[in-house]
Amino acid sequence: MVFKKITLIGTSGDSFDGAVDDALDRAESTLDNVYWVEVDELGVEIANAPDREYQAEVEVAFELAE
Amino acid sequence: MVFKKITLIGTSGDSFDGAVDDALDRAESTLDNVYWVEVDELGVEIANAPDREYQAEVEVAFELAE
Amino acid sequence: MVFKKITLIGTSGDSFDGAVDDALDRAESTLDNVYWVEVDELGVEIANAPDREYQAEVEVAFELAE
Amino acid sequence: MVFKKITLIGTSGDSFDGAVDDALDRAESTLDNVYWVEVDELGVEIANAPDREYQAEVEVAFELAE
Amino acid sequence: MVFKKITLIGTSGDSFDGAVDDALDRAESTLDNVYWVEVDELGVEIANAPDREYQAEVEVAFELAE
Amino acid sequence: MVFKKITLIGTSGDSFDGAVDDALDRAESTLDNVYWVEVDELGVEIANAPDREYQAEVEVAFELAE
Amino acid sequence: MVFKKITLIGTSGDSFDGAVDDALDRAESTLDNVYWVEVDELGVEIANAPDREYQAEVEVAFELAE
Amino acid sequence: MVFKKITLIGTSGDSFDGAVDDALDRAESTLDNVYWVEVDELGVEIANAPDREYQAEVEVAFELAE
Amino acid sequence: MVFKKITLIGTSGDSFDGAVDDALDRAESTLDNVYWVEVDELGVEIANAPDREYQAEVEVAFELAE
Amino acid sequence: MVFKKITLIGTSGDSFDGAVDDALDRAESTLDNVYWVEVDELGVEIANAPDREYQAEVEVAFELAE
Amino acid sequence: MVFKKITLIGTSGDSFDGAVDDALDRAESTLDNVYWVEVDELGVEIANAPDREYQAEVEVAFELAE
Amino acid sequence: MVFKKITLIGTSGDSFDGAVDDALDRAESTLDNVYWVEVDELGVEIANAPDREYQAEVEVAFELAE
Repeated sequence: MVFKKITLIGTSGDSFDGAVDDALDRAESTLDNVYWVEVDELGVEIANAPDREYQAEVEVAFELAE
Repeated sequence: MVFKKITLIGTSGDSFDGAVDDALDRAESTLDNVYWVEVDELGVEIANAPDREYQAEVEVAFELAE
Repeated sequence: MVFKKITLIGTSGDSFDGAVDDALDRAESTLDNVYWVEVDELGVEIANAPDREYQAEVEVAFELAE
Repeated sequence: MVFKKITLIGTSGDSFDGAVDDALDRAESTLDNVYWVEVDELGVEIANAPDREYQAEVEVAFELAE
Repeated sequence: MVFKKITLIGTSGDSFDGAVDDALDRAESTLDNVYWVEVDELGVEIANAPDREYQAEVEVAFELAE
Repeated sequence: MVFKKITLIGTSGDSFDGAVDDALDRAESTLDNVYWVEVDELGVEIANAPDREYQAEVEVAFELAE
Repeated sequence: MVFKKITLIGTSGDSFDGAVDDALDRAESTLDNVYWVEVDELGVEIANAPDREYQAEVEVAFELAE
Repeated sequence: MVFKKITLIGTSGDSFDGAVDDALDRAESTLDNVYWVEVDELGVEIANAPDREYQAEVEVAFELAE
Repeated sequence: MVFKKITLIGTSGDSFDGAVDDALDRAESTLDNVYWVEVDELGVEIANAPDREYQAEVEVAFELAE
Repeated sequence: MVFKKITLIGTSGDSFDGAVDDALDRAESTLDNVYWVEVDELGVEIANAPDREYQAEVEVAFELAE
Repeated sequence: MVFKKITLIGTSGDSFDGAVDDALDRAESTLDNVYWVEVDELGVEIANAPDREYQAEVEVAFELAE
Repeated sequence: MVFKKITLIGTSGDSFDGAVDDALDRAESTLDNVYWVEVDELGVEIANAPDREYQAEVEVAFELAE
């Protein structure tokens, strides 16, 4: 059994929880067998977003098909 | 005055705030004199949980009785 | 174009999102041109606060006027 | 010449060496021109594995075709 | 569900795998519900051991009884 | 909006700036919507290169198409 | 032979040496076979102490009885 | 003698050396007694800049007047 | 309630305790409401000082007036 | 009593244990009074080695003669 | 095959590339079989140098003769 | 101008200041042109010392003769 990890940055106009869920929704829509997620960084983009944009950088681990 | 720190991982089906509170509730139910908590890591367990399980690893500092 | 970063710690009786917003509100009330925020640490103060006080240490980046 | 790095987690019922080799076998079966591997983390999964499962998170560097 | 983590250092005259297993054997002899182990540091004691003593510092996570 | 980050190592016979540009050129030739780059490590390969080969390991962030 | 590490925070009104000794005195009064101490963090508490209170967070390693 | 450190991010359309010099020029135009600079991070902004914008985050140390 | 943190480097010809106190004396002479101090780095300057100059880099946290 | 630490990278065609022992054998053949070893990094060289070459970067501490 | 790593700090009045080359020139003038270099820190000395002095702290790895 | 850094561990039966001075005394007795020292780690050895032995691991930087 081998896992692979990729790094995504989710965004939300509402909250950090929403930003993590955004990244996780994306991962689960394209990957089978997502196992867990680790949160690496939290931040807020202000100047280049219409309003406060909450961001969460996460590592998504999924099992590779054999 | 001497403090001790222990490491707990709280879980919640709803949010990271809930996961931190879960660990803190547990700490306060068994320890007197909890002073502060530091959040070390946030993550989401998926494969081995019924739904997205938000997790927070925290260090809990409390004063030791003399 | 030169940016400067300062370190603030926001507090909230409710949530970590609230603590980050608290620091960001303060920054935007006194600084022009805030660009982004990085979250460095999350914690909860218990012994020296009336109730659980959620805290977020953040770095706030803003553009210096020429 | 440009290299790319990906992150894999190999597993073994026997040893950490076996877990690293597991990830490396997988990498070499799908990638040409693997150059080197860096070990990032070692761990053991117990509750969600039939027996002690040794795990090694590694970064695999390979040369991109021009 | 709340987990607790403790830090142990296992030792072995033979190998690092043996040192990790030494710590894990000890943990499982006194704790129910061990879930996983993370390896933090590897080292070799020489001057204060009869022969090369392989050491592994690990964090052991187990579920707290409710 | 979700971003993905990948890790590349660019090389140059001339300078570290050249090594970063090498990785960035490669990224922009195959990816749309590259947003920013973070430099993780700088090094020089000597024994396995004809001359001093400057290397830069970078993380490249790009927006995923919806 | 298995060691365990615990984290204590000693305090002193005088010096950092005094804060480390405070934690170590406490450890040795309740634990047999303390082997070594690692200093993790030094700080000074001001607002919630009568005077400058020097603090030292340390990890204390001791041998577990067989 | 007491020093203070502030964090600046310089930018340049040409090079990382230029980005560091940009931050240092700014520091020296407003501060007396700048002693040294430490480079914390290098990056390239692409999507929100007209062209590749090299950025250098630096800490600037200067002596405080008595 | 919002705190701000600044970074100072205190110096002393005698000891590290003296260097931390030097930075703290300076902070308290110009800032109200200093809450705590974290020690980031300790060092000794030799070539550019008349004698061994002990240095302590500290972060000073203080409450911002509303 | 003063110790010195040097950094070596041992190699082995077989295992990480072998790579650590390789560095330690070398250290003990040229240094008296080796006290302990800390493992800093593990990796595998592939492209510039005949076969998988396991590598271990270690710090070796030894007592300096008076 | 065993490698050793030493830490040098090169300096240049012109650029960081020049500072790295300065350290590497020195290493190659006294050591055979230099294999690679890792850049650990970049900085600029100002107060104790005639002009801006760019500095690069590097680790140099070379093969030990058998 | 090129500097070299070496790592020493000084010891003292009295204090951490004493342990740093012990390493620095040794460095200055065998090296010309010592420029500065950085403290990397502080600890206390107990089981293998007659009494509490304070230890300080330091990096010593000195200028290489041309």
